[in-house]
Amino acid sequence: MMMAMERQERDLGGEQSVYCEENYLEPYAYHEPGDLPGTLVISADAAIPTIWATEYSPAYWQTKKLTTPEEATNYLLNSTFVTWFDVTGLGSEGILRRIAETFQLHPLLLESVVNVPQRPKLEEYEENQLLFITHMVYPSKDGKGFITEQVSFVLGKNYLLTFQEEPEFDTFTPIRQRIQYNKGKIRQQGADYLFYALVDSILEGYFPILEEYGEQMEELQSEILANPDRYHLQRIHKIKRELLHLRRSLWPQREALNTLARVKHPLISKSTRVYLQSCYDSAVQLLDMLETYRELAANLMDIYLSSLGNRTNEIMRVLTVISTIFIPLTFIVGIYGMNFEYMPELKWRFGYFLCWGIMLTIASGLVFFFWRRGWLAGTN
Amino acid sequence: MMMAMERQERDLGGEQSVYCEENYLEPYAYHEPGDLPGTLVISADAAIPTIWATEYSPAYWQTKKLTTPEEATNYLLNSTFVTWFDVTGLGSEGILRRIAETFQLHPLLLESVVNVPQRPKLEEYEENQLLFITHMVYPSKDGKGFITEQVSFVLGKNYLLTFQEEPEFDTFTPIRQRIQYNKGKIRQQGADYLFYALVDSILEGYFPILEEYGEQMEELQSEILANPDRYHLQRIHKIKRELLHLRRSLWPQREALNTLARVKHPLISKSTRVYLQSCYDSAVQLLDMLETYRELAANLMDIYLSSLGNRTNEIMRVLTVISTIFIPLTFIVGIYGMNFEYMPELKWRFGYFLCWGIMLTIASGLVFFFWRRGWLAGTN
Amino acid sequence: MMMAMERQERDLGGEQSVYCEENYLEPYAYHEPGDLPGTLVISADAAIPTIWATEYSPAYWQTKKLTTPEEATNYLLNSTFVTWFDVTGLGSEGILRRIAETFQLHPLLLESVVNVPQRPKLEEYEENQLLFITHMVYPSKDGKGFITEQVSFVLGKNYLLTFQEEPEFDTFTPIRQRIQYNKGKIRQQGADYLFYALVDSILEGYFPILEEYGEQMEELQSEILANPDRYHLQRIHKIKRELLHLRRSLWPQREALNTLARVKHPLISKSTRVYLQSCYDSAVQLLDMLETYRELAANLMDIYLSSLGNRTNEIMRVLTVISTIFIPLTFIVGIYGMNFEYMPELKWRFGYFLCWGIMLTIASGLVFFFWRRGWLAGTN
Amino acid sequence: MMMAMERQERDLGGEQSVYCEENYLEPYAYHEPGDLPGTLVISADAAIPTIWATEYSPAYWQTKKLTTPEEATNYLLNSTFVTWFDVTGLGSEGILRRIAETFQLHPLLLESVVNVPQRPKLEEYEENQLLFITHMVYPSKDGKGFITEQVSFVLGKNYLLTFQEEPEFDTFTPIRQRIQYNKGKIRQQGADYLFYALVDSILEGYFPILEEYGEQMEELQSEILANPDRYHLQRIHKIKRELLHLRRSLWPQREALNTLARVKHPLISKSTRVYLQSCYDSAVQLLDMLETYRELAANLMDIYLSSLGNRTNEIMRVLTVISTIFIPLTFIVGIYGMNFEYMPELKWRFGYFLCWGIMLTIASGLVFFFWRRGWLAGTN
Amino acid sequence: MMMAMERQERDLGGEQSVYCEENYLEPYAYHEPGDLPGTLVISADAAIPTIWATEYSPAYWQTKKLTTPEEATNYLLNSTFVTWFDVTGLGSEGILRRIAETFQLHPLLLESVVNVPQRPKLEEYEENQLLFITHMVYPSKDGKGFITEQVSFVLGKNYLLTFQEEPEFDTFTPIRQRIQYNKGKIRQQGADYLFYALVDSILEGYFPILEEYGEQMEELQSEILANPDRYHLQRIHKIKRELLHLRRSLWPQREALNTLARVKHPLISKSTRVYLQSCYDSAVQLLDMLETYRELAANLMDIYLSSLGNRTNEIMRVLTVISTIFIPLTFIVGIYGMNFEYMPELKWRFGYFLCWGIMLTIASGLVFFFWRRGWLAGTN
Repeated sequence: MMMAMERQERDLGGEQSVYCEENYLEPYAYHEPGDLPGTLVISADAAIPTIWATEYSPAYWQTKKLTTPEEATNYLLNSTFVTWFDVTGLGSEGILRRIAETFQLHPLLLESVVNVPQRPKLEEYEENQLLFITHMVYPSKDGKGFITEQVSFVLGKNYLLTFQEEPEFDTFTPIRQRIQYNKGKIRQQGADYLFYALVDSILEGYFPILEEYGEQMEELQSEILANPDRYHLQRIHKIKRELLHLRRSLWPQREALNTLARVKHPLISKSTRVYLQSCYDSAVQLLDMLETYRELAANLMDIYLSSLGNRTNEIMRVLTVISTIFIPLTFIVGIYGMNFEYMPELKWRFGYFLCWGIMLTIASGLVFFFWRRGWLAGTN
Repeated sequence: MMMAMERQERDLGGEQSVYCEENYLEPYAYHEPGDLPGTLVISADAAIPTIWATEYSPAYWQTKKLTTPEEATNYLLNSTFVTWFDVTGLGSEGILRRIAETFQLHPLLLESVVNVPQRPKLEEYEENQLLFITHMVYPSKDGKGFITEQVSFVLGKNYLLTFQEEPEFDTFTPIRQRIQYNKGKIRQQGADYLFYALVDSILEGYFPILEEYGEQMEELQSEILANPDRYHLQRIHKIKRELLHLRRSLWPQREALNTLARVKHPLISKSTRVYLQSCYDSAVQLLDMLETYRELAANLMDIYLSSLGNRTNEIMRVLTVISTIFIPLTFIVGIYGMNFEYMPELKWRFGYFLCWGIMLTIASGLVFFFWRRGWLAGTN
Repeated sequence: MMMAMERQERDLGGEQSVYCEENYLEPYAYHEPGDLPGTLVISADAAIPTIWATEYSPAYWQTKKLTTPEEATNYLLNSTFVTWFDVTGLGSEGILRRIAETFQLHPLLLESVVNVPQRPKLEEYEENQLLFITHMVYPSKDGKGFITEQVSFVLGKNYLLTFQEEPEFDTFTPIRQRIQYNKGKIRQQGADYLFYALVDSILEGYFPILEEYGEQMEELQSEILANPDRYHLQRIHKIKRELLHLRRSLWPQREALNTLARVKHPLISKSTRVYLQSCYDSAVQLLDMLETYRELAANLMDIYLSSLGNRTNEIMRVLTVISTIFIPLTFIVGIYGMNFEYMPELKWRFGYFLCWGIMLTIASGLVFFFWRRGWLAGTN
Repeated sequence: MMMAMERQERDLGGEQSVYCEENYLEPYAYHEPGDLPGTLVISADAAIPTIWATEYSPAYWQTKKLTTPEEATNYLLNSTFVTWFDVTGLGSEGILRRIAETFQLHPLLLESVVNVPQRPKLEEYEENQLLFITHMVYPSKDGKGFITEQVSFVLGKNYLLTFQEEPEFDTFTPIRQRIQYNKGKIRQQGADYLFYALVDSILEGYFPILEEYGEQMEELQSEILANPDRYHLQRIHKIKRELLHLRRSLWPQREALNTLARVKHPLISKSTRVYLQSCYDSAVQLLDMLETYRELAANLMDIYLSSLGNRTNEIMRVLTVISTIFIPLTFIVGIYGMNFEYMPELKWRFGYFLCWGIMLTIASGLVFFFWRRGWLAGTN
Repeated sequence: MMMAMERQERDLGGEQSVYCEENYLEPYAYHEPGDLPGTLVISADAAIPTIWATEYSPAYWQTKKLTTPEEATNYLLNSTFVTWFDVTGLGSEGILRRIAETFQLHPLLLESVVNVPQRPKLEEYEENQLLFITHMVYPSKDGKGFITEQVSFVLGKNYLLTFQEEPEFDTFTPIRQRIQYNKGKIRQQGADYLFYALVDSILEGYFPILEEYGEQMEELQSEILANPDRYHLQRIHKIKRELLHLRRSLWPQREALNTLARVKHPLISKSTRVYLQSCYDSAVQLLDMLETYRELAANLMDIYLSSLGNRTNEIMRVLTVISTIFIPLTFIVGIYGMNFEYMPELKWRFGYFLCWGIMLTIASGLVFFFWRRGWLAGTN
């Protein structure tokens, strides 16, 4: 089958979940005031949902694209396998409602899954289902910035249901290969372990994104110290805004993972909780890095302002040194340009040279004065 | 009947709950020190209270405008229906006290409801009544800013009593339609579900208001980077103040909703608590967006100050370049304007051209010096 | 009797509890290191203590000025009435110690009451007494700023003992009238309700004081945006300091009131706890307003600094425009003021007019350059 | 005996616990990595330990200087008296180890006592001993700033052991007199009350130190508003640093006192806990003042920066006004200094006076322009 | 044997754990998204792991370099001794996996140990093992800055397993000597005490590093006050960044040590918990110093900006004083340089001297004006 292999880098043009460079922070989704609870807001350019069902046991594996949501019922009845239903695309209310019916999803659960973006959260629904909403990040095609996409997990008994905003890209390919080629112990474990493996792959995806900001800021700092300009101001604020964006995704994930790792739940086995604890550790490390980077970005702003102050000083110093030296000299030459009839100096034999002498003395004195104050050093 | 259909956009002229552009943050209401507890402060221009009673059961629905508060007693005795009493206008102490008597409201409860604005809060009164005070927001007519209005809910057994400051506008129209046309499951549920539906419509009303600020700030940022002026300063501070205002409304609502969603209470059924949890989630998302916007507004201020610094630098640079080039030249021409009798250069055949040569050399040297320092680039 | 009626506006000259405009933040009271616990620090200009005893029951009321502290004993023995002992003035160690003996006050309790100012606090003493220390505020006579005065409450069985710093002013007059004329249900209730009524009147007194700051800041903001000067700086910092002062009083009161409203205590009945809850709500609303105003005051400082930057820019721009236009022109006229023997232009028929032509061209070019940059607009 | 009377003001020259004006914040003590736990770091210039034993009962009192640490054993065996062992000076490892052996002190307890400074803390050791480490402050001899010294209390059954860094100064003299002359109830109480009395005297010692900063800042503020200079910058930062230093001492003391006042402990009687509660209140009041002062110090910095901005503005304005008025005039006089052969104005009869007329008109126009903008007012 | 003695100062060239001056903050380690849990990331230049086994009892001691990881099994079987396995170098996946097998380490535990750096943490694994990850710091060879290295402890029954990144340097030498020469009570205690001793030596290593920053900042402050330049800006930010780095290491260590000192655990005896409490105290003191230093570094930035403002003022003042004095004078001499035919003053006998007189009067007036304003003082 090899569905995953067919996937390609997505085209980013005009999609709703894209965090573009020009975009300010994206607001959370909401429906019109007074709408029925569970109202779905379907974006016009969202992809039609596709359902891939992957069932496996230690000795068996199969992946199939379902033609109707109702086909999933057969998988749900057969309890000897673990089945992963991967829904990609949120572009049809009809199909999504049929999926909800098949899996007996609460209307509010469906609303949270479909009306993207939502704040990451963990919720338990009465029908023995666990909802975990998270944001997947991956670098944007042009390498500047990143794209976020909401991924929702519904963990049930023997199955895991995931919803992605669009079909073209995800971080799950290595997990699909581990299932297909029976690498590691994933086929020996239940749906909860699959859940862990997918969440882990999402979290690990944040690391290279974050690391990139560290490098950008390091570069920015040296540029600013050398020569601050308006362009740096824009870049600092772009970084600050994007880190804020990542923070909004990571804080609630950390909270939810903490609950998952600590609270006993019938759907999650004790051994998987140890693994979820390592997911929580990753989230803590990510937030630790993030907060550090945010502090460094604030420092960058300070450096920018101080460098600006330094430059103003430097410019003023040049003006002051030149003005202060030449203004008195210009006054002197002005004196001897006057046309008074009786100006004895003008008649002197060496008046002109005396005048030069006085001017050179004054100029030297001022140069010495500025040199002593350190205003002549061009380096500062 | 169709009461809701008759409602129109309110006229904002001079009303007490209006958050006008010129207004600074509105203080909370208080009575004179030492006044009796329960003293009501009635604003002169407040509307006379009108009571609309809507009773419904799965199969039945009726809306009626009550002529006297005491009429409500009949509804209260009949326990097979759910009744929603909607009081609009807080302009008559007599009527309000009669309502309080009919519903057996605690004097302090009535004070909180009438002396607007109060901080949003949740309080339980001994007579098996739950008081929830909240603030409704909607965009002001001119599209700049928003208006807040206090809405108070008193939830009792089989009835819900709401108080609004004025009759012209609210976010409840869709709920009224859902009851009338039996959309969704609202008629199958009790007064607690009605309470949820109304609170939910109020919270959803905050989203478009907040979203608007994101767009305003994005626009402001590009304008400031291009050319910061005094007007932007005013706009940044207007945004900051209005976000502060929204924050004052949202934080206590979030707290109250958290209590409602988590603590068991005889008046609220288990299934409604799941819905109230989604209200709490909305409040959390709103606060998340709000705090993000507040941070962005603080960043805008930074950008403003830095852009100002950049402009000062630019202005200084122009002055310095021009002054520094011409001041020495002016000195030189001054020299040869002196009237000394003996100035050999003046007699030279090519003295004048030599003088020009020296001046051009100096000027070129300085231009080169400034070019090397990057002070000639007009873009920065 | 009508003691309260005789009271007049106090004269503020040189009293210890006055928070004057010139005063920085007043430190808390302390005794010399190593002094006996319970040492009293009596200020030289404090008033001699006067004790007013007001006893009442639903059907009875009497107010009397006690001549000796020991007279109070008769009141304490008679348990059918509620008695309010109001001590005004803290200027005699002897009388205060006799009061302490009569009421069996713990030495540390007396110290807290007499050594003003103390941080507001709630303390329970073993002899079945509750100490609540609070600060009363009222506007100063000149209308600029406010005055704080410590008020201490000792709540016992059937009696309430209050200590005020000075006799001339308090916010208790309406309560005295409610007792005398049997308004509301105060005469039907115990000493705990009296305690509530007095505390409530103190808290309500904070509202107009705080509101005043909102108005001041609104006014300041427009003035600063128009023309920032040094005087505004002083006023901003005066406001910040006074808000800090109010905050120091309100935070601990809020904590203490929270305890009073939540924790069961034999001296406070259940029905009074509901009223104390509304006091707590008032304190929360006051702090909410206060913190908002503090943030607005911080914003004012930002506006001040930005306006200053704007002005510097404006001044610089005027200088730069004028200098940059005239400096090259002055250079040109200097050239033709030189006395070289051979300067061909000087002989030209239209040299002078050509010179003017060149100068006008340069000036127009520069004016155009500045106009394009927007430096000629006088409004910014 | 009268040991305390012999004490004199200490000489501050070069001692280790001195917080000198030149010193930056003193780091906490530590031993070399890998040293044995309990390793003592003895400073070369520390004083040799002296032990004063003061034993008392309601009817008896005696103070004696012990010649060997082992003498203390006799006191410990006699349980009818309370004994206070006051060790001053930490300059001999041998003597300190013998003291530790006599009192059966845990090696880590001894390390905390000797390796000064430690962060204030409260610790309970298994041998029924309570360790309380605190910092005593007193004004430095020159009146500028203060000195901190670590004082450690070991409270046991019937005895109190205190360690001070040096013998010359402490705040305990009044306590010694209260014991000697049987003032107050100190001789009627146990070692826990003595402990309270000493801790209280240390805390009261912070008040005058803190108060001094309030006065300093008030003075600074008016100076800065009048004329900000570099010296004020240094003073603000000195104050900030010293308040930071006090804060480091007070926060952990507050925590420890809170524990002492709330948690039941066999060594501390119920009645003493009431007194320790008042110590805790003092610590809270000190921290309240401290945080207020820290905020005022931050405000001072703001005032400094704004005043600097104001001054720059003022200087710029003078330059701009003078330059802008005279630069065009200088240009005009330059024109008529040109030597063109044909310049008609030069021949006019009233050319010179016309020229003056034009110049005066221009100058008046500019003066009027600046006056309208308010740039001529010298006060701002 | 004396392994420790053979160790030398490490060469810092190009190693992965080095925190170089040019490096920005190092991100935490992560594996590729979707990798198997437990995937090891081996750095190409990491050292090959070496295992030193040190076994001891009160009467016995031996240190040996193991040739294969499996040799350790013998030690583990023999329970009468305590054995310390010290693994240095993380450069071979094969060897590390064999160590994990020998000690039955959980795959996630091994991952945390090998994929450096990790955030310090404490974790309990089911196989009765306690994992404690920490960071060791030591000054870099050039004395500027410091180096951090991850050290991981696995505490088991009767053994302690430590992992260091590289073999050349650690802070454990004194502990090795205490074991070898039986100093202190280390040989009388179990593996938990050894664990404490090593952790303590790591924590004590932070003190001199931190202290160094206090000295650097003190020096910087005086330099900046004298003459702020760009180089100081860079140094302040280097310090801020490095303190941030230390903070990232210390906060999680403090948390973990708090847990160790408070929570009962079968592997840690009660007496060792007292010692771990002192480790926790050290961590608290370190963080206290660190936060203080961070605040001082922020203050340094303020001082820098203010000093810059001061300098700008000073430069402007020089320019303004010189310009304002000479510009009017130059205007005057310009007047008498005009060539009008009729200029009466030019003919006057003392016109020239009168002109000088007027100019001197104006100059003196201006000098007096500036002197009164304090603009002539060169010191500010």
